[in-house]
Order: sequence, then structure tokens, then C-alpha cells
Amino acid sequence: MSRKGLLLVGHGSKLAYNKELIEKTAAHIADQHPEYLVRPGFMSMNTPTVEDALNLFKEDEIEMLVVVPLFLAKGIHILKDIPALLGLPEGEKKGLFAHTTGEIPLVYANPIGPDPLLADLMVKNAEDAINAEV
Amino acid sequence: MSRKGLLLVGHGSKLAYNKELIEKTAAHIADQHPEYLVRPGFMSMNTPTVEDALNLFKEDEIEMLVVVPLFLAKGIHILKDIPALLGLPEGEKKGLFAHTTGEIPLVYANPIGPDPLLADLMVKNAEDAINAEV
Repeated sequence: MSRKGLLLVGHGSKLAYNKELIEKTAAHIADQHPEYLVRPGFMSMNTPTVEDALNLFKEDEIEMLVVVPLFLAKGIHILKDIPALLGLPEGEKKGLFAHTTGEIPLVYANPIGPDPLLADLMVKNAEDAINAEV
Repeated sequence: MSRKGLLLVGHGSKLAYNKELIEKTAAHIADQHPEYLVRPGFMSMNTPTVEDALNLFKEDEIEMLVVVPLFLAKGIHILKDIPALLGLPEGEKKGLFAHTTGEIPLVYANPIGPDPLLADLMVKNAEDAINAEV
């Protein structure tokens, strides 16, 4: 099967919660979507770093690399830092990834943003809290 | 109709994107769930502040106030700063809100956390990016 690489980029944190969020979400995606080879990568404070993950993808059997930032909204990491790590000019969403077998397509996805699914998730969290035992 | 107040708490940002995310998500929730009276509130850098929003809820016709942080994961704002603003001891998820008509139930929901819906949202963003025109 020809697979796509999916690099799930996290912010990283001194506390354990951001890393746990990124790792569990990566595991959910891998479980539900075997067409993706999923790796986490962190901007700071946790490992593997984004650079580490990119190096590993160079050896993976993938036909394309999709970079998905698990961030709420655009900010300096999304607009400048991640494009710099990917070798993408600012504002560009598609480029090439230097795989060991040659260049393959590179795609840079948006962060979460204002999606109706996010609204549903917030209502779910509200209702879980209302219905929780004290 | 007896409604619940829903305070959607955002981090706030010097850039426009976090405020836009919180406001659009609040509007989605209000559209889809008329049982909630939804107000946004920001921890810093944007208005209304959380304190502003709490003051407005004191006059609203609500039977309960649910506070939902639109944050990815637990951190210092979730664990300490928001509970302090709500008058909740750290770790407590339920308390009372001093409404002008008397005390009403106060519920403090979790941030997004590792939810399968979040994984679906990341895959949707990946596929949108793959399928986008350059």
C-alpha cells in the first residue's frame, strides 16, 4: 500500500499535557486511517522535535508528506517557524520534501481554526461537565 | 425557555486569529444550541475579558453557568488562573455563581484534550490541504 506521511506538529510544553494530547491524537489518527503513517513532532520543550520527525520520514515508504499543526489558530509558529523548518516560503502551502529516494510532494495544512466540529467538541465538553458527578 | 450561560474562554493574542476563533466558535454554538446563552471572554490581550463576561452573565436570565475553555490542553491558565477568576478551589469543577437573583450552579468544563473528534478534525485539515489548488 502506498501511504502518506502525516507529521502532527505540537507546540510542546514544560507540563505533560500538550505532549499527551499530540501523542494520543497521533495514535487515534493512525488507528482510524491506516493510509497515513503518523509521527508527532514538537516545536520546543518535547521530543521528538520537528527536525527529528522530518529525518525519520526521509527513510519511510511514503509518496507524500502532509504536515498538520495541532494548534488552535495561526500565530508566529504557524506563519513563520514551521514554514522555515519545512523550507517553504511564508504563505506557501505546497512544496517538495527531500526524501532519500528523491523529492516527493509536501503539503502544509491549516491549524484547527473556526470549524463547526470544534463548536460540537466544546458543547460536548460542556455537557460532560454538567453531567459529571461532583 | 430556561437557558444556561456558556462562557467560552479564549487565551487572547496580539494577532487577530485567536479572537476570531473564539468569536466564530461562540457564534456556531449559539446558532446550533439555543439552549445556551453564549459569551466569549479572554484571559489577556483581547476584550471582553473573562471578568467582563462574568459581570454580564450576572444580569442574564440563566439557570446555570458553564465555563468552557477553548484551549488545547491543561496548563497554568486552566489549572490556576481560570479557577481563581471563578472563585473555585484548584481541582474543583463545580461551585456557585453569584447571580444578581442569587446563587446558581457553576460548572467548569475541560479544555479540548485528546478526543477522537479532534483526530477527525486534523485528518479533515490534512485532506483539505492535499486537495487544495496550489
